[in-house]
Amino acid sequence: MSIAEKMAANQKQVAISEFFEKNKHFLGFDTLNRALITAVKEAVDNALDACEEARILPDIVVKITKLDNSKDILQLEVEDNGPGIPRASIQKVFGQLLFGSRFHAIRQSRGQQGIGITGVVMYSQLTTGDPTHVESKIAKEATAVSVDIGLDTRKNKAIKSNQDRIDWGEKVHGLKIKTKLKAKYQRGRQSVWQYLRMTSIVNPHADILFIDPDGEKHHWQRVTERLPGRVEAIKPHPNGIELGQLQRLCSESSESRMTTFLRRTFSGVSQRAAKELCEVSELEEKLKPKSLSAQQVRSLLEAFQGERLLKGKAVKLLNPPTSCLSPIEELLIKKGLSKTIDSKFVTTMTRAPNVTQGNPFQVEVGLIFGEGMAADKPVEILRFANRVPLMYQQGGCLLTKAVESVDWRQYGLDQPGGRGVPKGPAAILVHLASTNVQFTSEAKEALSDNETVMEEARKAMLEMGRGLRKHLEKQKKMSKTIEKFELINDIIPAIAKKSASLLDLPVPDLAASITKIMSAVIAETTTTWNKETKQTDVHIILYNYTSRARSYTMLVNWPERQGATMVGNDLGGRKEAMGVWAWKLETLQPGSQTVIAYSLDGLEKGDWNETDVFYRGSQEVIGATKMDEKLLEEIRRQEEALNAPPPEEGEDSPDDEEEEDPVEDAAEPEPTAPAGDTKQTTLFGGDY
Amino acid sequence: MSIAEKMAANQKQVAISEFFEKNKHFLGFDTLNRALITAVKEAVDNALDACEEARILPDIVVKITKLDNSKDILQLEVEDNGPGIPRASIQKVFGQLLFGSRFHAIRQSRGQQGIGITGVVMYSQLTTGDPTHVESKIAKEATAVSVDIGLDTRKNKAIKSNQDRIDWGEKVHGLKIKTKLKAKYQRGRQSVWQYLRMTSIVNPHADILFIDPDGEKHHWQRVTERLPGRVEAIKPHPNGIELGQLQRLCSESSESRMTTFLRRTFSGVSQRAAKELCEVSELEEKLKPKSLSAQQVRSLLEAFQGERLLKGKAVKLLNPPTSCLSPIEELLIKKGLSKTIDSKFVTTMTRAPNVTQGNPFQVEVGLIFGEGMAADKPVEILRFANRVPLMYQQGGCLLTKAVESVDWRQYGLDQPGGRGVPKGPAAILVHLASTNVQFTSEAKEALSDNETVMEEARKAMLEMGRGLRKHLEKQKKMSKTIEKFELINDIIPAIAKKSASLLDLPVPDLAASITKIMSAVIAETTTTWNKETKQTDVHIILYNYTSRARSYTMLVNWPERQGATMVGNDLGGRKEAMGVWAWKLETLQPGSQTVIAYSLDGLEKGDWNETDVFYRGSQEVIGATKMDEKLLEEIRRQEEALNAPPPEEGEDSPDDEEEEDPVEDAAEPEPTAPAGDTKQTTLFGGDY
Repeated sequence: MSIAEKMAANQKQVAISEFFEKNKHFLGFDTLNRALITAVKEAVDNALDACEEARILPDIVVKITKLDNSKDILQLEVEDNGPGIPRASIQKVFGQLLFGSRFHAIRQSRGQQGIGITGVVMYSQLTTGDPTHVESKIAKEATAVSVDIGLDTRKNKAIKSNQDRIDWGEKVHGLKIKTKLKAKYQRGRQSVWQYLRMTSIVNPHADILFIDPDGEKHHWQRVTERLPGRVEAIKPHPNGIELGQLQRLCSESSESRMTTFLRRTFSGVSQRAAKELCEVSELEEKLKPKSLSAQQVRSLLEAFQGERLLKGKAVKLLNPPTSCLSPIEELLIKKGLSKTIDSKFVTTMTRAPNVTQGNPFQVEVGLIFGEGMAADKPVEILRFANRVPLMYQQGGCLLTKAVESVDWRQYGLDQPGGRGVPKGPAAILVHLASTNVQFTSEAKEALSDNETVMEEARKAMLEMGRGLRKHLEKQKKMSKTIEKFELINDIIPAIAKKSASLLDLPVPDLAASITKIMSAVIAETTTTWNKETKQTDVHIILYNYTSRARSYTMLVNWPERQGATMVGNDLGGRKEAMGVWAWKLETLQPGSQTVIAYSLDGLEKGDWNETDVFYRGSQEVIGATKMDEKLLEEIRRQEEALNAPPPEEGEDSPDDEEEEDPVEDAAEPEPTAPAGDTKQTTLFGGDY
Repeated sequence: MSIAEKMAANQKQVAISEFFEKNKHFLGFDTLNRALITAVKEAVDNALDACEEARILPDIVVKITKLDNSKDILQLEVEDNGPGIPRASIQKVFGQLLFGSRFHAIRQSRGQQGIGITGVVMYSQLTTGDPTHVESKIAKEATAVSVDIGLDTRKNKAIKSNQDRIDWGEKVHGLKIKTKLKAKYQRGRQSVWQYLRMTSIVNPHADILFIDPDGEKHHWQRVTERLPGRVEAIKPHPNGIELGQLQRLCSESSESRMTTFLRRTFSGVSQRAAKELCEVSELEEKLKPKSLSAQQVRSLLEAFQGERLLKGKAVKLLNPPTSCLSPIEELLIKKGLSKTIDSKFVTTMTRAPNVTQGNPFQVEVGLIFGEGMAADKPVEILRFANRVPLMYQQGGCLLTKAVESVDWRQYGLDQPGGRGVPKGPAAILVHLASTNVQFTSEAKEALSDNETVMEEARKAMLEMGRGLRKHLEKQKKMSKTIEKFELINDIIPAIAKKSASLLDLPVPDLAASITKIMSAVIAETTTTWNKETKQTDVHIILYNYTSRARSYTMLVNWPERQGATMVGNDLGGRKEAMGVWAWKLETLQPGSQTVIAYSLDGLEKGDWNETDVFYRGSQEVIGATKMDEKLLEEIRRQEEALNAPPPEEGEDSPDDEEEEDPVEDAAEPEPTAPAGDTKQTTLFGGDY
């Protein structure tokens, strides 16, 4: 045998399970500490996904027990109240890699790959030699299935043993897994505790109980009964599809006409668009997709990409529906951040949905600033993807790179050289919601590079940075004015008193003089949580420290869409827009003041920490922002975009819709603006 | 159907090829720039691996052509003079994922997974719709095979077309691939050019020609005719094996006796050790491995891990042979660094081989410091794994973390806060050679966390840091002494002249006075490349600026093992140890000086930039290091460990050896010290 033949003779096909057993670090099993977090993560993510899909409010119990201290062998138990898994599917879900329901579905979910939990079973078997114990009960069966699952890694098949039926008593449905693994339990920033805490922040509808190896219980209670909006699987969008994909979609299609194929296979293609696509790519509408030549597929792709024009214009496609996404939403981010870190100033920013490579996505960011955080350390970065906290590989993650790409010095944070993670008493939260989160590896801990996502994340940071700068400037201005006022209030009376005593005259009334010197109108606003009433009290005092009478309309933002109600608002006023309230105040005489006070009911501590105050009037108000139509429009738009009501709960699974024929029935929607445009938010904000 | 059943009904098995097509970013195809580098990397790595295995000095040509500017479509051609691939194997190598020869082999190689080049074919097909053209010629066939390979991703099977036989003229063997892909060519730090340049640095035996899209040719010529040492596949080592692996090895074994099984299946197990392992794990020697119970396997693992004792001691195992590794070696690192960056001071450090999870590995580091580099920027980190440059994900890589974990301030580099990448005019090279490089993902760009590897890398950095500190201290001391000397040489004569002229006396001889004031012995050493003679000239001047006569033996290090010869050494001297030369000098009178001069032949520019000078004598020599036995032993050890001769070239492929029966024939080697110990280096340095 020649050397080439000898070398070739050594080549073999490797099973996917052998591959991942050898490369278990790809799955997040590199160190003993991380192995445990990975196992918890995979089990909890699955529980949350299953509950969300079955529209069940999740109750999750995680228990870790030390089995053998000297050998780092731990036992992990995770139990949920999800729909359970039918008997026949258990072995595939737990004992077969790349088996799952979410791989081909275009919608936001935590799991996507069909690797996670099987990886846990495999790691457990590799390090302890034992199978994983699974119990599952589905609602329609009287008893639960109890079975041990191992893995034949040479064949990527489950090894089932000890299968039985057991009684679960009261519990109607759910899943329990019990697995042993070589791992270490540790505390701190990269710990199971931290992972579950962060998970509870972005999944406030979940109840999570954690029993640690010392038997101590940590309970994160459900904060809202409202499930995240139901996400619907969508069809691929022509925007960003690759030639190879399109070739396959055509060749595998059984449709008999191009127009039907285009409408049924893709999202965003109306009947009119389908006809126009055929026209510009010079394909007959009657053509069978299966019969397309390579060149014809190429023409169609060019039409998709807007390279073939109809009367000088690209064929207009609708944006993909964003019902496939489930962002955390502004209010929850604020709440989460406020709960995690006890500080006053929180700003958030949710970008409108955008599309990359045919996948809708949306970026949300939040920033908390102030007391209680170290001023000389890098800010903490809290990364999330599809509501899952990312705990490792911060340095290699696109979300971190987006933070690092901003020159934070101009927004009031310290940043040596204007690059890298800024320093200061702040924490930054970034969340990517996407139908296809592109991670750097199967361990799902860091996002890989993508220009469009990077750009969105960067823009969100910049906008948020402006919010921070405004806040810091306002604070600075206020504190300067107050300093001046206090100085004047100290010195002028002292001079007056001294002068009066020297001249043997009575001390004059100084209000007018002080006012003249101050020459400013000041608004002082406090937003505080009232423990007694469980309400958020807002208190605004407007001082007229000028020599003239002043007239103002004062306005505030308030969380109307989030279901808050305004109570104890004695001054009345009127609704200016959704989430904006206005009071036309009586004329304010020089040296006088007016108080606006009201409370917000229906919120919880941390929901609403700061009220933005605006004014309409000729003289500047320190501590408030001048309202103009552009700003009002912006507030209106944000409200509309971000605070859409939860979707109606239907009985049908989203997949059923695909069986209907959309061609004949569907009304012809108007083409919308391209992705990234502001108009897009109406799609997202609308009823779906 | 209940919700649980509906959900289960949607679950499907996904093919590995579908998985990687969707997750192409795992393979390094996330951005258009990186996609091109990844494609080049996979093709070149394969070429280098194949040539190395077939013991061929590689000639590689890489050509990139722009096909369609507007659409970012490039054509990549890579041609090598490797052994070629037999016709029947081509379709599997290029069209089937997880097919390869290196997955199960425990030895150092660039490719390990059987994914790389098929990933390129897949990405090409996905983005352009076209197959990849492959031509292959093996030595024993008269013509080359020409064929186009595509991929059926639903089945993970190749699609073959246009197969033919063509004439290659003179060329006896090799491989050509030509593929089109959506990608961007760009210059700079993350570019094809940079990748090939770094590759040539650590593969000096390769000749690489690159033709860029502008038709410009970049040629990195072969620098040495010596191939890297042949790496041999070894058997798994009991150290760090997991229970699940051991179970499988037992159950799949056809051996009839435990002792034979232990000797034949594992490396490091002698006949005596096999008997002892059986004894402590209470297994009869005659037992069939296949028949072991779960508990018996567990006992055996405990014996492996040293938890079962024989007369109070763990069973001694041999270290795994390190013939499976191919480090770059100190001299090449120095050479590589000096060639890349034009600076004077280079220090390197190669750690002795160690073992993690049964896999031998070795860490090598190098540091270059000085002129021509920015002093206020982070140092450049050059990462390599198994002679492959790592270009992406620097932040998430263990090698970077090792650099960051050192407090470089104590070694003379700037590092705010004592953490993170240090700043200064330096570049740090780190190379991990391992039989199983654990990357964070299939893209093979960053190493995942591993405590043992981290510790080795850190130790290497610390030792190297000490070298840097010594150099900087020496430099500082020298420059201070010279400054003092120059000052004295200026002032004293001026005073003498003035005084003499005032007193009308002749100017006195000042040498004695100056010497008295200086009170130091100074060695000035220069090591320079002589263009004319193609030799490295070393010049040492020893000044006695003290008032007494002095006696010294001076010593230098020199690259004896690397094949250099010492010429023009008129002072003679003698060999003190391998790589250390010594001269016993004549007594040096006060104010006098001696010159040691010689040249090194057989080296190339950049091979040897600095000579370390040592002395034996009572008075300190500024510019040299006091030699003691410990230091000499250290130098001896390093020489021995690092500069082993190239292995004998045999005709047999390494795998053939497995067919021999090692039990009867093999001599009983003595057990050696545990991994990490210095003794281990003798194993590595010995003849193999």
